[in-house]
This record gives sequence, C-alpha cells and structure tokens, in this order.
Amino acid sequence: MSTRLADLVERLGGHLKGDGSICVAGIAPLADATPSQISFLSNAKFRAQATSSHAAALILAPADDAAIGSVYTGARIVTDNPYAYFARAAQLFAALSAPPRRPGIHPHASIDPAATIAPTAVIGAHVTVDADAVIEDGVVIDPGCFIGRAARIGAGTHLHPNVTFESACRIGRNGIVHAGAVIGADGFGFANEGGAWIKIPQTGGVSIGDDVEIGANTCIDRGALTDTVIEDGVKLDNQIQIGHNCHIGAHTAMAGCVGVAGSARIGKYCTFGGAAMVLGHLTIADHVHISSASMVSRSIHEPGQYTGFFPLSKNADWEKSAAIVRNLASMREKIRDLEKTVKSLSEKKQ
Amino acid sequence: MSTRLADLVERLGGHLKGDGSICVAGIAPLADATPSQISFLSNAKFRAQATSSHAAALILAPADDAAIGSVYTGARIVTDNPYAYFARAAQLFAALSAPPRRPGIHPHASIDPAATIAPTAVIGAHVTVDADAVIEDGVVIDPGCFIGRAARIGAGTHLHPNVTFESACRIGRNGIVHAGAVIGADGFGFANEGGAWIKIPQTGGVSIGDDVEIGANTCIDRGALTDTVIEDGVKLDNQIQIGHNCHIGAHTAMAGCVGVAGSARIGKYCTFGGAAMVLGHLTIADHVHISSASMVSRSIHEPGQYTGFFPLSKNADWEKSAAIVRNLASMREKIRDLEKTVKSLSEKKQ
Amino acid sequence: MSTRLADLVERLGGHLKGDGSICVAGIAPLADATPSQISFLSNAKFRAQATSSHAAALILAPADDAAIGSVYTGARIVTDNPYAYFARAAQLFAALSAPPRRPGIHPHASIDPAATIAPTAVIGAHVTVDADAVIEDGVVIDPGCFIGRAARIGAGTHLHPNVTFESACRIGRNGIVHAGAVIGADGFGFANEGGAWIKIPQTGGVSIGDDVEIGANTCIDRGALTDTVIEDGVKLDNQIQIGHNCHIGAHTAMAGCVGVAGSARIGKYCTFGGAAMVLGHLTIADHVHISSASMVSRSIHEPGQYTGFFPLSKNADWEKSAAIVRNLASMREKIRDLEKTVKSLSEKKQ
Repeated sequence: MSTRLADLVERLGGHLKGDGSICVAGIAPLADATPSQISFLSNAKFRAQATSSHAAALILAPADDAAIGSVYTGARIVTDNPYAYFARAAQLFAALSAPPRRPGIHPHASIDPAATIAPTAVIGAHVTVDADAVIEDGVVIDPGCFIGRAARIGAGTHLHPNVTFESACRIGRNGIVHAGAVIGADGFGFANEGGAWIKIPQTGGVSIGDDVEIGANTCIDRGALTDTVIEDGVKLDNQIQIGHNCHIGAHTAMAGCVGVAGSARIGKYCTFGGAAMVLGHLTIADHVHISSASMVSRSIHEPGQYTGFFPLSKNADWEKSAAIVRNLASMREKIRDLEKTVKSLSEKKQ
Repeated sequence: MSTRLADLVERLGGHLKGDGSICVAGIAPLADATPSQISFLSNAKFRAQATSSHAAALILAPADDAAIGSVYTGARIVTDNPYAYFARAAQLFAALSAPPRRPGIHPHASIDPAATIAPTAVIGAHVTVDADAVIEDGVVIDPGCFIGRAARIGAGTHLHPNVTFESACRIGRNGIVHAGAVIGADGFGFANEGGAWIKIPQTGGVSIGDDVEIGANTCIDRGALTDTVIEDGVKLDNQIQIGHNCHIGAHTAMAGCVGVAGSARIGKYCTFGGAAMVLGHLTIADHVHISSASMVSRSIHEPGQYTGFFPLSKNADWEKSAAIVRNLASMREKIRDLEKTVKSLSEKKQ
Repeated sequence: MSTRLADLVERLGGHLKGDGSICVAGIAPLADATPSQISFLSNAKFRAQATSSHAAALILAPADDAAIGSVYTGARIVTDNPYAYFARAAQLFAALSAPPRRPGIHPHASIDPAATIAPTAVIGAHVTVDADAVIEDGVVIDPGCFIGRAARIGAGTHLHPNVTFESACRIGRNGIVHAGAVIGADGFGFANEGGAWIKIPQTGGVSIGDDVEIGANTCIDRGALTDTVIEDGVKLDNQIQIGHNCHIGAHTAMAGCVGVAGSARIGKYCTFGGAAMVLGHLTIADHVHISSASMVSRSIHEPGQYTGFFPLSKNADWEKSAAIVRNLASMREKIRDLEKTVKSLSEKKQ
C-alpha cells in the first residue's frame, strides 16, 4: 500500500516543496531509503548524507531546507519538528500495511452477559470480560486478556495478549497496554501484629488517562482507599512497578525496570532512566529527570537532572574503592586531625 | 451491607464503650469518615483530629481512650493494636460488599480427569488444571491460570488471573497469588563446557506455607534437587525474583522488585525495601531489615537495619563525586603521604 | 525407569571402568546417592566424601580417578568435565521419568487456518496461533500461550504457559521459554513534540538462535526497524528486560532482573550478575563479566570482571558514608589545601 505525498501532507501538515503526485510506501533512514520511500533529517550534521539520499522526499526543518534545498533533487516536506513528523508518518505507513482486524467477539472468549462491548471492538480468543465492564468503540483486546468487573477500556485502546486488567480500573482513549501487564493488583499494605502481617484490603482502583502506553509485564497497583492515578500521555516501558496510590503527572516517561513505591507523587514531563527507584510518599516536581539505576530517597522540588549510582570499575579497583567508602568517616577524621596539626604547625612557624 | 458494632466486636474482639446497636457500613480515615462509618486512631498525635471525627465509632488504644474518651461523643472500641484492628475490620467490610462467587468449574476451563477439585472451589474461564493436581476447599482460581501436574492449592487460597503454577509445587491455606505470578519455573542452573552452557534439570519444586501473599508478576523458581521454601506468613510484593532453593523464613516481607539469588537462606521477620538484592548462598539472620536499592553481598548474622546505595545528587555534583570514588585509593595514598610528612615536620619542630 | 551404565556411557561418552550391566535410575550428590543412583566428583576437595559414597558409579576426572580409583569400590565414568557430564546425565534421567506428551492440538486451542503446525507438535489448551505462524517438529506449547502472525517456533522448542510470542518473531531449535515471558513487545521509542511523546512504530522483530533459554516473565522487545538479535546458546534468567535492537552474542548468560537498554551490543561468552544494568547504544566486548547490581554506563572493550555497587553497611554507618560521598569534592579540596600548606611548611623548614 502506498500514499501520494500530497495526501500525506494534507493529513500530517508541513509545507510541501516538489511533486505531490509521487507515491511513497514507507519511511527509512537517509542511507537506506529507496526512491519509493521518504526519509527525514532531524540533525544538521547529517546534511551531507541527506543530499545524497535516494529517498523520494525528505522531511526537514526550515534551516536545513534553506541550507540544502537547492542541492537536494527530491521533494521536501518542511516542518518545525522533523523527528515528530517522521514518527507520525511512520504510524501512517504502519497502519497502511497492518493486517485488517474484524470487529466482533471470538467464539472462544467468555463475556459476562452484564458486560457492555461496543460492536466495533475486537475481542480475541480466550479473553474473559466480567460483569459491568465496558469496552468502548474500536478497542482491541488480544487473546488471553482478563477484564475485571466494572473495568472500563476507553475507545481505541489496544490490550496486547495476556494482560490482566482488574475490577474497577479504567484506562482512557487510544492507550496501548503490552503483553503480560497487570493493572490493579492489590497494593502492598499490611498492619503488623506481633511480627505477623494483617492484610489491609485495597479498595481503590487504578485511573489511567488518554494516550498512555504501558509496557510488557509492567504492574500498576490499585489504591488502598482512593485510586492510583496515571495522567494523560504517560509512557511506561516494560517491567515497571508502580505502587498503590502513586500519582504520575502527564507526559512523564519511565524506561524499563523502574520501581515507584506507594503514594509517591511525580510531576509532569519527568523522565526516569532504566531501573531508577523512587521511595514512597515522596514528591517530585515537574521536569525532573532521574538517571538510570539511581535511587530517589528524598523529595525533589527543583527541575533538573539527578543521578546516584556507584561508578563501574575493574573488580579489583572496585574492591579497593568499596573498602574505603565503608570507612570514609575515618578518612574524614584523619583529614581533620591533619588540619589541626598543620594549623598548629603553621601558627608555631609564624 | 452493614453490621452492628456489637457484632463487629464479637467477631474481632476489643472492648466496646458505647451503643452496640449502631449499624456501620465501612471504615475510613478520621477526617473522611461519615456517621455510617468507623475510624481509627493509631498515633497519639492525631488525638485532636479524632475528637472532631464524624465517625460512628473510633478504634483506639487504652492510652488514647483515657486521653480523649471523655471528649469524643461516638462509640469507642478499645484495643492494644488499633491499626491491626482496622485491617481486620476493613477485611470484614470488604467481604460484606464483595460480589458473591458461585462454586464450580467454568465451562471454558480445561480440567484433566485425574485432577481433584473440591466442589466448593471456583475455577474460572480458560483455566487449565493438569493431572493429579489437587484444588482444595474454597479455592478461587481466576481466568487464564495454569495449574501443573501434581500441584496442590491449599484451602481458601486465591489465584488471580493468568498465574502459572507449575507441576509439583504447593501452596498452603489462605494464600493470595496475584496476576501473572510464576511459581515453579526452572531455576537457573547450568554446567559450562568450553564456553557453552549445559542445562541442569531442575527437579525440585516450590513449597509455600499458609497465609502467604505473592505479588503480580513475581517469580519463585523451583529447586534443583530439593524444594525452594517459602514459610508461613511471608508477603512478597510485585516483580520479585526468588531463585532456586532459597529458603525464606516466616513473616518476612519484601517490597517490589527485590531479587534473591539461588540458595540464599533468609530468616524470619525480615523486611526488604524495594529493589534490594541478595547474592546467592548467603545466610541472613532473623529480624534483619534491608533498605531499598541495597545490595547484600555477604551473610548478615546480626539483626538490624542495613543500607547501601549511592546517594542521589544533581547530575553535575554526582559526576564529580563519582570521579573521586573511582580514585579513592589515590586519595587515601595522599592522606598517608601527608600524615608522614606532617609527622616528620612535627618531630623536627620539637 | 532405569538405564544400564554401559548404555549411559554409549550415549554420553566417557571411559567406563567397572560393571556396565549395573542399572541406575538417577543421579544425586555424593552424600545422598543410593546404590541405584550415580554421583559425580567435580572438585578434588571432595575426594574423601567420594570414596565413601554409596553411589553405584562415580563420574570423575582423570586426576581424581588416579587418586581414588583404587579405593572406590563402585564403577567409575572418567571424563574431562564431570560437572557437564552430570548435567547431561541428569537430563537423560529427567527425560526417562517425564510424563509422556501426546502430539496434537488441544480442542480448546484457537488455531488460525493459515497457520502451519507440525503433526508432532503439542499445542495445549487455550493457546492461540495466528495466521502464517509456523510451529515446527516436536515443539511443545503449553496452555495459555499466544503465537502471533508469521511467528516461527523452531523444532524441539518448549514454550511454558502464558508466554506471549508476538508477530514476526522467531526462535530457533531446542529453545526453552519460561512462563509469562513476552517476546516482541514494542520497543520504547518516541519522538518528543512540545513535551508530549509521539510513538515511533516498532516494525522490526526479534530473532532468537538455537539452544536459547529465556526465563519467566522476561521481556525481549522487537526492533524499531531491524530485529533485536539473541544469538545461539544465550541463557536469560527471569525478570530480564532486553530493549529494542539489542544484540546479544552467543553463549552469554544473564542472571535475574538484568536490564539492557536499547541498541546495546553485547559480546559472546559474557556473564551478568543479577540486576546488572546496561545503558543503551553501548558495546561490550566478548568475555566480559559484570557483577550483580552493577551499572554499565560506558562501553567495555577489554575482557575481565567489572563491578560497581555501593557496599552494604549498618544503616547508621551508611548514613555517614553517604553524607561524605555527597561532599567528596570538598574533601578533595581540603586535601589539596593541606598539601599546599604542608609543602610550604616543608620548604620553609629547609
């Protein structure tokens, strides 16, 4: 399947320079693109590579167009954010080549009579939908998923195989939940009595906004009394753990293996590198960026990049450093002693 | 559904002061509770808040009752551990409002004729139970679970959706296993031969006690020759990995993302913060508490709190600290040199 | 089921000394082995224990045979790598006692008419196989698995329950994928536009070689444009996350909870301890060994053992060390000041 350049630009915007009737079937990096594909220039240092690309058309920024537009022989689509334009164009090409899905409920699915399923939804084999659940228009639920009682899946959302979406949890429109994710397992809450743990029932839910993507085998726990909240546009990678009653602000993104303990309140537009950890009940401001493998043990009120991991060394060197790190207090003591002695020596000297 | 205060106290204990005929339908924090709910005071610093609560009744300790009993106008339930009482009362209210489950086997489940299923058990859709498995009284197995050959699920235990419970593994009474957990995957055991890995079959099982809770997507590996053992009352949060032949003592609790390597032996009444890691073949005493994101690389024989993670800083500050950490041996050398020089200067001085 | 020693040696090699007609039914450690079992000596320090073992036969190396062969009364199988021989013998005994599996497709499986399933394959209950998928000879797919469109499962590979194997991904011969693993979820790729994230479709697949083992709930993401690649003989433990477009060299092994960010290129014969982390776009040479809980933030070009984690201490000691670590730059400053002062004192002295 292919599309005319003019149609692409009508749909995605940008300013077209060149022949809009050219048909293109995909998008590829500058060096790989063929005359039936388009490409994109998102970094000025690749201008030379762009001018020699075989792509039918280039997506590029105004400054790059000014610099190479007269040299490049193909068509150009000029836009302020070529990389975002690339992403949208790639989505469009992916949709063109995706196998069609037939709406309807697979005969091997188990749907409670009290569930509401939009006729445009696609419900795969071996799916279970419990009573009072609502599956909105255009939702795709892949095989093996479980949708609990009174859960709600917003229009256009796609659940990949074997997702567990427990009772009374909600996700908004156009979300993606990858395989094996668990939404709404009980939060980890217990009272201690003589050493033994008494379970505190977790009666809140999980409330997820629009345009949220949740990675494979990621878990978001249900709240204790009120909901765990994931705002619009949040992107979570695989193997992430979000504790009960966390609140994650809009457009925050977390890479794989991140853990966030209960009741942490994380701002908007934050990013977390892989395996970053956040203690419970902390507050993190908007626009905070946490590096990979870093542990956040206090609230952060100022935007910026924060890091905390032990640097890697050859094992023998690490053993020396680690031994000293364990004894830094005595090293500091030695320095204080030296300072005193040297001060007294200096004074005597004068 | 609601219950009379007198009935609540008859069931859960404590000393009731006030009108036992009041009907209550739930439990809520001091500030939120309505006259049809009860609340609890588990920390003396909230006494003022407690006296102004609208709750029908307060759960509180004798000392707090002595302090505010004459001021608070509602009923009181006096007990030594109000927080544990709250947890039990909340369980009771949750049970009152839970949708009823009908015992029986869903027509879309696949049960081997040689499996034994108690008539009071609830087996959901798309569940598979293999030969010689035993499902005891009152067990609930949610949709999509797999129960392997000769596995045993103890009375009253609840498996949430999509749990994999492999052959010859056992869990005791009143357990909870959250969605996506995997009990009894092969331990990670190989012999090396010229660089390639030869698999060592893992022929032990997993033996889990009573009152154990296992979080979503948590894995407990089967033993190599003998069983991996999880004692009574252990609580594991989500995304935890327990290696083969570990032994975890009763009432130990681990927060999300903890990893325990093979053959570690962990005591009773321990706690592990999120993402703590334990190397294999270590022994950890009873009553040891490991902080989040801390790595246990040696056995611990003394109770206490242990920690080891790199403190978080602004990235620029971390880069300086990390560079110095890498070179701590040379810093120590400089201090030794200084000490020698200063000593010699001091001696000459005298 | 049992086997004659002579048959065992014919199948697995090694030099048999003693009566080949003895029948043995299993393998056990030196101290536990009964006269119907064999045992193995893989470490010279257990020679004394070996001589008193009740095993019907011992697997041992030539040097150990020379030392204790005349003392030990049972049969001996002499081989250069007794531990690898033990692993292969244990596999053989496990196969002898495994319950037989009947080839065929369970009536509760959902197979697309355009899928190709070898008649010798075993397809469990509640499995879904999409169009154009290919399931080769002797494959075992346990209940609840999902096999996507045009995926290929190589001969002899075993998928445990509830595995998700997405479209266009491939695994070679004799692989093992443990329960809950997710192969081929979307890589984590987005373009940023004014703070919001625009999804970049992930159109590559996952290409997995022969003899690969993948742990429970482990995730391997599909590539963005080209495939994520796992070479032959790689062994991945549970809860691992492999990002899109990673390339993992043959016979590399990773323990549980490891995370590898996108486009990392890891060599052959490497090992990673539990919870080790690797940043994206790095290159790691062959024969590199990363310790547990260590963060790899730069490429590694030299073989060897590398480590980086903060050493564990009693919490009070850690608090002191951590406070100093945060201020190492000022400590270094103090040492420099001391060096200057002491130098000037020394010079004045002379």
